Amino acid sequence: MTASVTLVLPAWVEEVVDDRGARVPGRLGDDHARMGFVLALARENVDRGDGGPFAAAIFDVTTGSLVAAGVNLVLASKVPIAHAEVVAIAMAGPSLGSYDLRIAGPTELVTSCEPCAMCLGAVPWSGLSRVVAGARDEDARAVGFDEGDKPGDWAAYLRRRGIEVVVDIRRSESAAVIRGYVEAGGHVYNGARGSV
Amino acid sequence: MTASVTLVLPAWVEEVVDDRGARVPGRLGDDHARMGFVLALARENVDRGDGGPFAAAIFDVTTGSLVAAGVNLVLASKVPIAHAEVVAIAMAGPSLGSYDLRIAGPTELVTSCEPCAMCLGAVPWSGLSRVVAGARDEDARAVGFDEGDKPGDWAAYLRRRGIEVVVDIRRSESAAVIRGYVEAGGHVYNGARGSV
Repeated sequence: MTASVTLVLPAWVEEVVDDRGARVPGRLGDDHARMGFVLALARENVDRGDGGPFAAAIFDVTTGSLVAAGVNLVLASKVPIAHAEVVAIAMAGPSLGSYDLRIAGPTELVTSCEPCAMCLGAVPWSGLSRVVAGARDEDARAVGFDEGDKPGDWAAYLRRRGIEVVVDIRRSESAAVIRGYVEAGGHVYNGARGSV
Repeated sequence: MTASVTLVLPAWVEEVVDDRGARVPGRLGDDHARMGFVLALARENVDRGDGGPFAAAIFDVTTGSLVAAGVNLVLASKVPIAHAEVVAIAMAGPSLGSYDLRIAGPTELVTSCEPCAMCLGAVPWSGLSRVVAGARDEDARAVGFDEGDKPGDWAAYLRRRGIEVVVDIRRSESAAVIRGYVEAGGHVYNGARGSV
């Protein structure tokens, strides 16, 4: 029996973080810029053959500085739940020193694609105050990725809990990354009954 | 920025595994026995002050042997998503050598409480064939735990995907563990808008 599990970001993530100045407060000054950083991570994850065409990051809303980054690690880690959003949220807790990501002020999740059912469920638990999404889930479903059974209006579900939601930020660029992955022969690694 | 995150089971988990013979194929011969093992983990997690009153385990359906165990690690790890089911599923992938938990035959998740919205979303992704639950989510909600917005009939949602669901296995014992945690002053660590 395994008694521990570790999720590790690929070493190149730090390079992208530095190249984009993501650690410099204010450098990624708006949703468009922050999504550009996330899309750079998603593209690199595909180009390096490290995993699925998805990336995410968590920022401090007040300062705009990076708290945690995540890329899809399902294939590399063999951890079924290692979606980009889950990876970023899991890293953010220890990084901030609390399971409640509001501990040092409001935080936001910027994700290259709308969260699947699991990642959506993870958002309220983590204390995030804001979610910014790129591609829509129909963009992921169009190439065969299963997104699970989400509440009809997932954004409304979060807004009812006081969480701000912004969608369609650089959607076409993000959808192109997803399509490019599949067109290049990337594995669509759905779970057991993903095709049902 | 943190570049890795590790979830570690408390050392006493191995003792409970050995005491209960959970690694011996066939020793925990039915749902009742396997739930007994999971409830022992949940009780110990509370008694040791290590975390929330929830535990889970993944078994090989064919042999009945243990693949992975999980206890709630939210408080100990500061990882917001470290629910017992997520921990067990995350451990099971590397343990079996695949993100698809069907790789060596059907596997089942035995969980002391019905999965929350996030953990429910994680079930299909992981390739689990069967879910066995103890307490109902109203037992967790009754003491203040937020379970998230799940599909109306969560079991039907899984069954539509060909996943078998069995509920109410030792429900009253599991509900008593949850109540006992709160009565003893255990922290109900809901996310940001858990009380809404």
